[in-house]
Amino acid sequence: MKVRIFDTTLRDGEQTPGVSLSPDQKLDIAIKLDELGVDAIEAGFPVISRGEQKAVKMITSQGLSCEVAGLARTSKKDIDAAADAGLNYVHTFIATSDLHLEHKLHMNRKEALDHAVTAVEYAKSRGMRVEFSAEDATRTERAYLLEVFGAVAKAGADRVDIPDTVGYSTPEYMAEITRDVVNATKLPVSVHCHNDFGLAVGNALAGIGAGAECAHVTINGIGERAGNASLEELVMALQCLQHEKKYETGINSKMLYETSRFISKTVGILVQPNKAIVGSNAFGHESGIHTHGVLNNPLTYEPISPDLVGRKRWMQVGKHAGLHGMNAMLGEYGIKPTEEQSKMILERVKALGDEGTKTTDVELLLIASEILGDAGIKKIVHLAGFSVSTGVGIMPYAFVKLNIDGKDFIGTDYGVGPVDAALNAIEKITGDIAEIKIRDYGLAAISGGSGALCEVTIRVEDSDGNKVSAKSVGKDIVTTSVKAVIDGLNRIMLRKLQDTKS
Amino acid sequence: MKVRIFDTTLRDGEQTPGVSLSPDQKLDIAIKLDELGVDAIEAGFPVISRGEQKAVKMITSQGLSCEVAGLARTSKKDIDAAADAGLNYVHTFIATSDLHLEHKLHMNRKEALDHAVTAVEYAKSRGMRVEFSAEDATRTERAYLLEVFGAVAKAGADRVDIPDTVGYSTPEYMAEITRDVVNATKLPVSVHCHNDFGLAVGNALAGIGAGAECAHVTINGIGERAGNASLEELVMALQCLQHEKKYETGINSKMLYETSRFISKTVGILVQPNKAIVGSNAFGHESGIHTHGVLNNPLTYEPISPDLVGRKRWMQVGKHAGLHGMNAMLGEYGIKPTEEQSKMILERVKALGDEGTKTTDVELLLIASEILGDAGIKKIVHLAGFSVSTGVGIMPYAFVKLNIDGKDFIGTDYGVGPVDAALNAIEKITGDIAEIKIRDYGLAAISGGSGALCEVTIRVEDSDGNKVSAKSVGKDIVTTSVKAVIDGLNRIMLRKLQDTKS
Repeated sequence: MKVRIFDTTLRDGEQTPGVSLSPDQKLDIAIKLDELGVDAIEAGFPVISRGEQKAVKMITSQGLSCEVAGLARTSKKDIDAAADAGLNYVHTFIATSDLHLEHKLHMNRKEALDHAVTAVEYAKSRGMRVEFSAEDATRTERAYLLEVFGAVAKAGADRVDIPDTVGYSTPEYMAEITRDVVNATKLPVSVHCHNDFGLAVGNALAGIGAGAECAHVTINGIGERAGNASLEELVMALQCLQHEKKYETGINSKMLYETSRFISKTVGILVQPNKAIVGSNAFGHESGIHTHGVLNNPLTYEPISPDLVGRKRWMQVGKHAGLHGMNAMLGEYGIKPTEEQSKMILERVKALGDEGTKTTDVELLLIASEILGDAGIKKIVHLAGFSVSTGVGIMPYAFVKLNIDGKDFIGTDYGVGPVDAALNAIEKITGDIAEIKIRDYGLAAISGGSGALCEVTIRVEDSDGNKVSAKSVGKDIVTTSVKAVIDGLNRIMLRKLQDTKS
Repeated sequence: MKVRIFDTTLRDGEQTPGVSLSPDQKLDIAIKLDELGVDAIEAGFPVISRGEQKAVKMITSQGLSCEVAGLARTSKKDIDAAADAGLNYVHTFIATSDLHLEHKLHMNRKEALDHAVTAVEYAKSRGMRVEFSAEDATRTERAYLLEVFGAVAKAGADRVDIPDTVGYSTPEYMAEITRDVVNATKLPVSVHCHNDFGLAVGNALAGIGAGAECAHVTINGIGERAGNASLEELVMALQCLQHEKKYETGINSKMLYETSRFISKTVGILVQPNKAIVGSNAFGHESGIHTHGVLNNPLTYEPISPDLVGRKRWMQVGKHAGLHGMNAMLGEYGIKPTEEQSKMILERVKALGDEGTKTTDVELLLIASEILGDAGIKKIVHLAGFSVSTGVGIMPYAFVKLNIDGKDFIGTDYGVGPVDAALNAIEKITGDIAEIKIRDYGLAAISGGSGALCEVTIRVEDSDGNKVSAKSVGKDIVTTSVKAVIDGLNRIMLRKLQDTKS
């Protein structure tokens, strides 16, 4: 069975508090979602602002393959704004729970039902396909909910949607009312699930299992409060897990990771490391049991291959590490310790972990070099000196002195901030000497005070296109960033050295 | 029905790649979890390192109210390590899926079953309560799975656990095998769900609905890969949603938020804004429809009161804002615009949003002051000058010049990094002049290059204990941090001014 994916990243996702997108940004996202293969996108809520109208108009004029919908309350003004934005598909809604009727709309049930019917008829008269949502459906009295859905079906609605507006449903309840609504309307039914209790994907699956043919979702699960059902989780759960029916979607799953990263950057909402499918740890392994299993057969500790969602697996050593995983990592650098040496290296790694310290690849190599003697493992790039300044009325500028293979090099540069200035100064040196570029820079969120630890991740690339990541942790954001880059430089140069040897 | 909460933040949570905790940190977390009211904690995996043994010993000696368990493979060595760490409750496991047997353990089914039984008998002989897990249970052939569980029950296991090791189960399947395992063992059954497809909480609920009496969970859902079922989501879903049975737990839900923050800081794994229950946006509202509803009755757009989990709701204006929400926010500062003025202010806020710009409270006040004329809204603190330096071999130091109510003040200080130095310098001034302290500093994750935008959140507190938060966005981490503090200073002083007036 084909499940229809209705993406509302540009509407419910943009309603994430603190998120505001310009029309150009919205168009870029719409194009990306269309490439990903969604069946429909909700482009926005045209009545709310001039920019929103403009954005929706730009998207409807783009000639995308997917359907494009826009949100409207049941008022003539909202529906007109949708039609005027070039939409031929409107998603109109009115709340039906007594709580919303009494405390928000100040209407009785009869009035809300009339508004719903009038809106559907009006939207149809303006030549639009209509999807109707009974807002807060899961807290609406069931008989009345079915009455409303039945009435809008009779009034000509093309689709109906069941919104679990505050994420209050359980999978059982979502299945029950979906069955009811399918029976009452004989129309294609969508489910729109929120994640306030972590159940959005479970509820959406339950609705689909009970006869819904479409789910409203967002990339990275962004949206009001705890967000919506996440597109990437629902699509992979539909396609990869075992269900009574066999499901498919039009999504090109190999684009999921890049789409997630694109949305995260554009809307400025970060993705936590332990987020399913797209979090940085979703295909990362540290514990000895897990790395051992994955080295033998990745499926032991991965439900799906990371390739399927456009990703790569990674491993790292630490206090939970085992010999197999550690030796595999050392092997990548051409280092083959004896059994005795392996045990000594692992002992050192675990001792660091017991102190609460993470072990990076370069630290692992340094430990290995001490235990094996210098078997071609040496620190090639050394930070000999560094200073940076910024302020108000001062262009941020940096001075860096690197010692590379025994020779000193000096670089100075400015930037948009002190980290940027420092990295630019380093790149001036490495670009000349080693043709190495800094390709990516990331800083994990900091909380708990200006003296808290920060974690920097960078990626460097050499002239052959080899890419290497490195991390550093410290209290000074700028110095820690510089150390991460030095770590990355050493790592890519070590790799190159090993490549040349082998 | 009372559901038992078995927290494995210190074991599966610590196996999050990149997380390493020292024994002291583990003890602090154990104490916090005990205060929260969990029934049992899994303190660690004693055999993996000396530090881990020490940590578990410290925790078992602490005299906590909750039960304390430790993990062990089915080997004598692992079980001895658990007993030697002072544990009288061991969680022992062996994989039972053909995939794991063939590719990881290189055993046949008979051998794995024998190992399981021998381990349970040995652990019982050492006087421990035993919980047995059939690793990868959800991908294990069902008849064999029940054979193993039946055999360990006969061998004296006190509890059995069904791990969905790679998050591969659907709620339906979890319910089915839970029913089978309850029947086959007549023992208390736990479910241990992973979140690889976003279904961990849904699967745990399904297991409990089908007869499991305990769930293995972690704070913030941390753990291997996409993590485990999140304690805060599962507990609130059990307690607040409608189920066939009525559930309760021993958790003091008012401690959930502080516990989440504590764990996030200690393990260094951030929580995304759209995380259920504990994410920064979980009780935040921006859209006009939502803020209007929440102002009339918070339950319209909140499934539970934020107090229930130790939190407060917040609102902000932006392109989705409506008049009601905006006027409520201005009202907090004692500002009451006319209807005409309100519309003009909102127009300006939406125009900013259409450009992709977020509006902070202070920007809202500035817009209001321009439109209302200066009705007591003026910027009290002005950044007159600022510079900061850091580097290798240099102590980070800062110079700040503030103009407060027309007078200039100068502060200089050093710190662990340039941001810390700058904030210390500001605090030197504000501590003297206005008795205002900077209480919290947060920086959202940055990705996409050293020139990317960063977002800083700070909290300041005055001598009366009033606290105010402020945000700033910019490209220079240090300057943006300073601007956030200035914003916060203005906000708390404006509030004080209004308090004095009213």
